[in-house]
Amino acid sequence: MSNFKTIGIIGKQDEAPKVWETLDRLVRCLRASRREVFFDDVSGAKVAAPKECIVGLREMGRCCSLVVVVGGDGTLLHAARAMAEFQVPLVGINLGRLGFLADVLPQEIETRVEQILAGEYQEEPRHMLEARISGEEPGEDHCLALNEVVVHRRNPARVIELETYIEGVFVNAQRSDGIIVATPTGSTAYALSGGGPLLHPTLDVLAVVPICPHTLSNRPLVVAGDSHIEIRIGDQDRDQVKVTCDGLTASHPESPARVFIDQAPWPTRLLYPKGHDHYKILRAKLGWGGPLPCQSS
Amino acid sequence: MSNFKTIGIIGKQDEAPKVWETLDRLVRCLRASRREVFFDDVSGAKVAAPKECIVGLREMGRCCSLVVVVGGDGTLLHAARAMAEFQVPLVGINLGRLGFLADVLPQEIETRVEQILAGEYQEEPRHMLEARISGEEPGEDHCLALNEVVVHRRNPARVIELETYIEGVFVNAQRSDGIIVATPTGSTAYALSGGGPLLHPTLDVLAVVPICPHTLSNRPLVVAGDSHIEIRIGDQDRDQVKVTCDGLTASHPESPARVFIDQAPWPTRLLYPKGHDHYKILRAKLGWGGPLPCQSS
Amino acid sequence: MSNFKTIGIIGKQDEAPKVWETLDRLVRCLRASRREVFFDDVSGAKVAAPKECIVGLREMGRCCSLVVVVGGDGTLLHAARAMAEFQVPLVGINLGRLGFLADVLPQEIETRVEQILAGEYQEEPRHMLEARISGEEPGEDHCLALNEVVVHRRNPARVIELETYIEGVFVNAQRSDGIIVATPTGSTAYALSGGGPLLHPTLDVLAVVPICPHTLSNRPLVVAGDSHIEIRIGDQDRDQVKVTCDGLTASHPESPARVFIDQAPWPTRLLYPKGHDHYKILRAKLGWGGPLPCQSS
Amino acid sequence: MSNFKTIGIIGKQDEAPKVWETLDRLVRCLRASRREVFFDDVSGAKVAAPKECIVGLREMGRCCSLVVVVGGDGTLLHAARAMAEFQVPLVGINLGRLGFLADVLPQEIETRVEQILAGEYQEEPRHMLEARISGEEPGEDHCLALNEVVVHRRNPARVIELETYIEGVFVNAQRSDGIIVATPTGSTAYALSGGGPLLHPTLDVLAVVPICPHTLSNRPLVVAGDSHIEIRIGDQDRDQVKVTCDGLTASHPESPARVFIDQAPWPTRLLYPKGHDHYKILRAKLGWGGPLPCQSS
Repeated sequence: MSNFKTIGIIGKQDEAPKVWETLDRLVRCLRASRREVFFDDVSGAKVAAPKECIVGLREMGRCCSLVVVVGGDGTLLHAARAMAEFQVPLVGINLGRLGFLADVLPQEIETRVEQILAGEYQEEPRHMLEARISGEEPGEDHCLALNEVVVHRRNPARVIELETYIEGVFVNAQRSDGIIVATPTGSTAYALSGGGPLLHPTLDVLAVVPICPHTLSNRPLVVAGDSHIEIRIGDQDRDQVKVTCDGLTASHPESPARVFIDQAPWPTRLLYPKGHDHYKILRAKLGWGGPLPCQSS
Repeated sequence: MSNFKTIGIIGKQDEAPKVWETLDRLVRCLRASRREVFFDDVSGAKVAAPKECIVGLREMGRCCSLVVVVGGDGTLLHAARAMAEFQVPLVGINLGRLGFLADVLPQEIETRVEQILAGEYQEEPRHMLEARISGEEPGEDHCLALNEVVVHRRNPARVIELETYIEGVFVNAQRSDGIIVATPTGSTAYALSGGGPLLHPTLDVLAVVPICPHTLSNRPLVVAGDSHIEIRIGDQDRDQVKVTCDGLTASHPESPARVFIDQAPWPTRLLYPKGHDHYKILRAKLGWGGPLPCQSS
Repeated sequence: MSNFKTIGIIGKQDEAPKVWETLDRLVRCLRASRREVFFDDVSGAKVAAPKECIVGLREMGRCCSLVVVVGGDGTLLHAARAMAEFQVPLVGINLGRLGFLADVLPQEIETRVEQILAGEYQEEPRHMLEARISGEEPGEDHCLALNEVVVHRRNPARVIELETYIEGVFVNAQRSDGIIVATPTGSTAYALSGGGPLLHPTLDVLAVVPICPHTLSNRPLVVAGDSHIEIRIGDQDRDQVKVTCDGLTASHPESPARVFIDQAPWPTRLLYPKGHDHYKILRAKLGWGGPLPCQSS
Repeated sequence: MSNFKTIGIIGKQDEAPKVWETLDRLVRCLRASRREVFFDDVSGAKVAAPKECIVGLREMGRCCSLVVVVGGDGTLLHAARAMAEFQVPLVGINLGRLGFLADVLPQEIETRVEQILAGEYQEEPRHMLEARISGEEPGEDHCLALNEVVVHRRNPARVIELETYIEGVFVNAQRSDGIIVATPTGSTAYALSGGGPLLHPTLDVLAVVPICPHTLSNRPLVVAGDSHIEIRIGDQDRDQVKVTCDGLTASHPESPARVFIDQAPWPTRLLYPKGHDHYKILRAKLGWGGPLPCQSS
């Protein structure tokens, strides 16, 4: 019983009975394997965990050697940002439909969790982004993202002008609805809706995707994962802009002037049961065609 | 005079006086710098070079330490494939409009060539692809590409079915007009017309771009540059397919069944005068917006 | 029994038992309704029809008041072109998966056919296209299309240059893989793969869709359905071009120089059982989202 | 001097000297032609017009037989909405770069205005849209648009769910950043950035364009111009939505529930000097290719 003695659980904020059932099933399974289990507020409340087993996320990060996330991709993104600096590996159990990140289905919990506890897993480090946002006054705000950092216009009645610099070199100025900077993990999320490519999750690259640009040749760029990206907001548009990290509004000055986006110092450590097949998930989620019927080898 | 003592010239097959003028200017400049100059058939004929200075491309590859290409991106692609195995660096002089690859303009020849001969250049290795094409009989054909390998339907009255495997793992089956596998260098060429992203030239990645796929979610993929890619052609479609490398028909069996695409063992060694700015070329070629007028720093 | 006394059947060239079963079921149903039935070669052979009931398509056009097509969208396109000048209405029975055009499923034959024979149908006229193709010599070839006329490059190793004129006015010159001129009916077919919009089938408009154009701002155009469209092929590219109508190679000069595309003089008369819902078919075929779960009115 | 005795001028709110100079030139030209001239507040102030010649827009609509707009496409959109119910024809003078709508350049004022006053013009009626927006309480707000009506998400940190109905028939539900309903006039504006087609300005159709939809097959639809379109906003998202008309925030309930979009009762009457060429403007604005050099007829 060498692996993962202390396990944290992070649950989805959702009243559906499915969430409770899945948590319950997971807890039984972990206890049967004689692991010590800690809960975040949400999951702890759902399974009526003893008070001393409910911990804050920072404490969970410090004391757990594995965190199991019960929810969808959104819950996993939240867990990933919280666990990043502690470098605790994550495994995701999905409720209902298959996720890109959380790919263990509720009915497989026992088998899959046992596999992982027995060391039969593959670890996939996923790069994260760190955004620093400065206004006209000194000081900066920070946020972390596993999927993407987005500079949006705040007001749909305003077009904004943005300049992009990569490694300090001017790329272009554009009028658009905004710019998405996505990791490979985020390339199946908002960036895909914006016309970006699918980046293989193991690549150390970023996609820079303009949202509804006025100039039709402003196409998605793929650049090195450790690129230093800067987005400068036009003088007139600074109170017209909002920055989001993984779809959540980042805390930032009222009038952001520059957004600096860099690779975060830690990746998310995602664990998958052995045999995880990225393309199988893409086929299922995107409705791609399976093998040809009569393909001879 | 340490660098590049022996220099080859490869010219564009084109009767325009511009070609001759530019070649002439280049030769004067190289001779003034006391370099030994060799010519391919095309450029040699244009400047009426002495017979002993006109060499085959393989010989040029063996004896020259630098090759200057006078033409457009097409001529440079041709030179790149020919020089690849000899690892001779290339510099491109463009005629008329700016190219993505050949970025020295005729009027700058003297300055730029002197810079390069003086060692003031930057070298950019550009990955190439090697395609192996097999039919139903044993044996394979090969081709090299700096831009892209494409599996096309040969007959516009037929839809073809293609299966893609990456690293031996099944990706999808698709009905489409074909599939483009492009290097970063090729990402500004045919792959861009097909909806692919712009890949930064220094990245070690490939784009796999479906051409007019029936399934609208079949989007461009970006994968590791050393991926082993296999495209299998549907049983019924094997006599309906054509493979091209850099836009030239590859020699291959009448009914190709599988196309294996791998990184070539050698990159193209492109030389640019110092200060080369990739994004400046993208802005010029794609009509992107320059810096905002009143952007304060 | 006022309607549709004489009914023709056109069948799909396909050995699957499904085709025979469906034809058989259809014939029983029509005979039970005491209709006179004629067969094309393909369907007649499958049901072993008496010789005198097997007719050529022109004769079928002249003597039948309704034609039932058993097959997929491809068979229906073929029937539509053959019946156009006779203005015989068509109804399509699909085998297997739902089609955009043939939307009666085999298990519904009896109900749906009775409805239609009883006059409970809606007729949807679908505009067709007529292409005239001329080379450098006098004379022209013609073809009809219900979906689209396409000017393609014949050789994937060649880019072609095409000029478009609409109503005699120059639109643009483009380098591309070709141009699709699609009817609303064809807007769910090849034009959709090429990036064209979905045109409502009752509109009297056409989409002109460039295939992989070099210039990224060459976007699909929608123009009046009775527009006179001319595509001129660059001098150098005339032996490099192929014209297709509904995906079939049109008969045309070896080196076509101009393709004139006009609305055909007759529409296809498609019959649907009452209550036919175009958007329901789009949702099913394109995987669009159904109504929101908890949407209050 | 039968035509256009009383002429209104609407000017752009802009301090650039170009605006004043152009207005001045226009006024001289109109006075030389002995027309009575009225001014809106903006243009009147710039040329220091006598008080009695400065009128409100409704009064201008009632008393003028032609309105000349000096500005860009934005100023023309503003004038079009104000003049719609009075059915006063408009002509647009552009400052600086060519517009899609305002295509008289400042240096051509005298020639072009004289042509138009002499009756040498072509009139192009451009359909407009009327949006009615209702919340959960009774009552509706209205707005007019010449380009487009857009239902946007207000908060970039929220995805919204929208249902579309056309002629009362359910089309689809989508998660997206919003939906654009554009006229042909608007098809060169925001709808184009969102991936919509170019609709010929004389067509009586609309484009319904999803903005960054989650489902990749949610493609632009083209429907009849007099379609009754309804967009229903998901129960949870009603306080998350903003409606704009021609890029201006429409006045509407805090929590809009339904947006009804219909053709407005009046088109905008645009006048162009004779010989106006729509495709020439598209070529200039979109950077399309001109005629092939060596194209023989």
